[in-house]
Amino acid sequence: MAVGSGELTALTPVNGVEISCAQAGIKKAGRDDVVLFTLCEGAQTAATFTTNAFCAAPVQLAKTHLAARQPRYLLINTGNANAGTGALGKSNALRSCQSLANLADVPVETVLPFSTGVIGEHLPVEKIEAVIPAMLAESNADWLQAARGIMTTDTRPKGFSEKIELEGEEVVITGISKGAGMIKPNMATMLAFVASDAACTASCLQEIIRHAVEKSFNRITVDGDTSTNDACVLVATGKSSGQVIEKATDPRYVAFRDAVTRVFIQLAQMIVRDAEGATKFVTVTVEGGRDNEECLKAAYAVAESPLVKTALFASDPNWGRILAAVGRAGVEQLDVGGVSVFLDEALIAENGARAAAYSEQAAQLIMNRSEFTIRINLGRGSCSETVWTSDLSHDYVKINAEYRS
Amino acid sequence: MAVGSGELTALTPVNGVEISCAQAGIKKAGRDDVVLFTLCEGAQTAATFTTNAFCAAPVQLAKTHLAARQPRYLLINTGNANAGTGALGKSNALRSCQSLANLADVPVETVLPFSTGVIGEHLPVEKIEAVIPAMLAESNADWLQAARGIMTTDTRPKGFSEKIELEGEEVVITGISKGAGMIKPNMATMLAFVASDAACTASCLQEIIRHAVEKSFNRITVDGDTSTNDACVLVATGKSSGQVIEKATDPRYVAFRDAVTRVFIQLAQMIVRDAEGATKFVTVTVEGGRDNEECLKAAYAVAESPLVKTALFASDPNWGRILAAVGRAGVEQLDVGGVSVFLDEALIAENGARAAAYSEQAAQLIMNRSEFTIRINLGRGSCSETVWTSDLSHDYVKINAEYRS
Repeated sequence: MAVGSGELTALTPVNGVEISCAQAGIKKAGRDDVVLFTLCEGAQTAATFTTNAFCAAPVQLAKTHLAARQPRYLLINTGNANAGTGALGKSNALRSCQSLANLADVPVETVLPFSTGVIGEHLPVEKIEAVIPAMLAESNADWLQAARGIMTTDTRPKGFSEKIELEGEEVVITGISKGAGMIKPNMATMLAFVASDAACTASCLQEIIRHAVEKSFNRITVDGDTSTNDACVLVATGKSSGQVIEKATDPRYVAFRDAVTRVFIQLAQMIVRDAEGATKFVTVTVEGGRDNEECLKAAYAVAESPLVKTALFASDPNWGRILAAVGRAGVEQLDVGGVSVFLDEALIAENGARAAAYSEQAAQLIMNRSEFTIRINLGRGSCSETVWTSDLSHDYVKINAEYRS
Repeated sequence: MAVGSGELTALTPVNGVEISCAQAGIKKAGRDDVVLFTLCEGAQTAATFTTNAFCAAPVQLAKTHLAARQPRYLLINTGNANAGTGALGKSNALRSCQSLANLADVPVETVLPFSTGVIGEHLPVEKIEAVIPAMLAESNADWLQAARGIMTTDTRPKGFSEKIELEGEEVVITGISKGAGMIKPNMATMLAFVASDAACTASCLQEIIRHAVEKSFNRITVDGDTSTNDACVLVATGKSSGQVIEKATDPRYVAFRDAVTRVFIQLAQMIVRDAEGATKFVTVTVEGGRDNEECLKAAYAVAESPLVKTALFASDPNWGRILAAVGRAGVEQLDVGGVSVFLDEALIAENGARAAAYSEQAAQLIMNRSEFTIRINLGRGSCSETVWTSDLSHDYVKINAEYRS
């Protein structure tokens, strides 16, 4: 299941980025499972990765390679995460990069590997090696095909494009993402690849990706489980006609950063709308906090509570479970008498109890919507935070109880 | 569903404790929903309560009353939590205590109120008042009846008795508990009432209850949701023939404390075995930690991971999900190369990857058991912690999506 129509708007190509897709037979026969991005010379790349201590072999290698050189190739496979695979996992990841580097005649560090899929199985590296020559020879895939090629339990491809003007120059930003379960990115993201033809230094790009990830992928949760393979990549090819953005004081910096952030938020929300078993897309906003940290604590406590999530699935306006989750969130010295809760426009709890104007019928009508907002006011400050989440349905259990079979 | 046979061993009466049960029609007709414990004069009582900021009206009142006087009556209703009910909730809780105190001719502070059930509905206090006269007039119920009388979504009554000898004097400890969902007691417990005929000062009793709760109710989780109504009460009636235990240096102190702790652990484990939708009872032990806090973090990350819990339901030895949960648990500078994982006697992961001796078939056989242990060695110290949990099944979703209907 998934929320909303899931139809993608057209994904605009990015000058300086070429794409190849191939069927290597890793996941199953008859579908693309390897995607190769080829970046033009001079393209600048920034990335963030999972903070899970068991980070996968390709994540470790991609970090090392990115620290050494600017990348020319992003080599992505689905169907196998190459995580929890020890020393052989690392050498398999390196071998896939080396094969590509040899054929393309580039240093191995210019290849970044990414894997997603089952944890703990060894990467069938020879299957990837078998498709690399053809992928290098012809790069005629588009972003939509790439979005399909990186899916695992996703039911839909995820992508978004935006065009902005930076002082008269048109700039394109296009990105794709994947993910439906094991979703609580933490200082990192799920797999997401975003490119722009803007010209931007690597250091500016790194600041921008941190900002954008913090507002997007680091604000979603499906099941609170941070993946071993999360990675997010932002490329600036510099093929647009504008001057290079070199520092944050450049007036175009904020416009570019905010446009990248909007694309990231779209991609992150698509992951939640396609969350495993999801029937609801729910925005949880906590406002009136003393600081952002306590707003986030409360928002995640609500967004990850199995009791709140099963009530969402049942379209049950069970505000008591929302208050109970806020109450255990670890907000220090919370005066519950100051807390109020809204479902979209309806006030359902105030002063820590059911609102005087509460109507079960009105609340029920809102809960029947496939998308709505739970807004919680802590009543003790001016900070706010928003996270996005899904419900906990029979299908979530079904999908995850049957994933390996 | 529930794990194991659930048959209770006989619950020994405790001299100095009398019990009445009544059908007040709060939950539904035809079952006991009010339980009254009458404690003898001189009985000493200690208690711990939920740390949820939205703690229920009866919890707030019970704390105040206990601070003022030693209790003579524990008045418990099921079917309504009287939580999230604001000022009226507090006055309703007080009114039920006052009615009882007037009839029994005791100060109102000697009555402790406890409520469990739906959050956010007002307590039908007149229904409770209606049954109090008969409950005071005749106290002929036993512990098993009381255990049934406090059930909500529980499918089984929960109780345990133990007899020990303290320097030649026989002492009885008997307790009951309830709880199946919204279970992650935090520095407190679910509803549990334990009494002994031992003689013990209130201050010793408070130390003992803290110790026992920490080793039992504070080590279980069903869904990570800390209730608004958790409360645990330990009574020492002093009716046994032994001398009063007055300090921790008394040689009987440790024997009594450890026996109380064993009873608490039995009661806590019964809650997990009867967890909503549970088909598995799983012990998660994390050893080889630098300190207890990091062991607990890792144990709870595994025990509360929806991905691990759905794999448990599916009897799928998906050790990758266990490693991923350990990896995101926030254990600082964890060297994953030192981590190993056992399912009961079988080593399934070592050096952060699949064990060389791993056999899917052997792991599968263990996962098919209704009770087993996941043992994780962090390989960096000598501390260990154990928590108990259940799986995440279709029935958990069904029960919690339909609870209010």
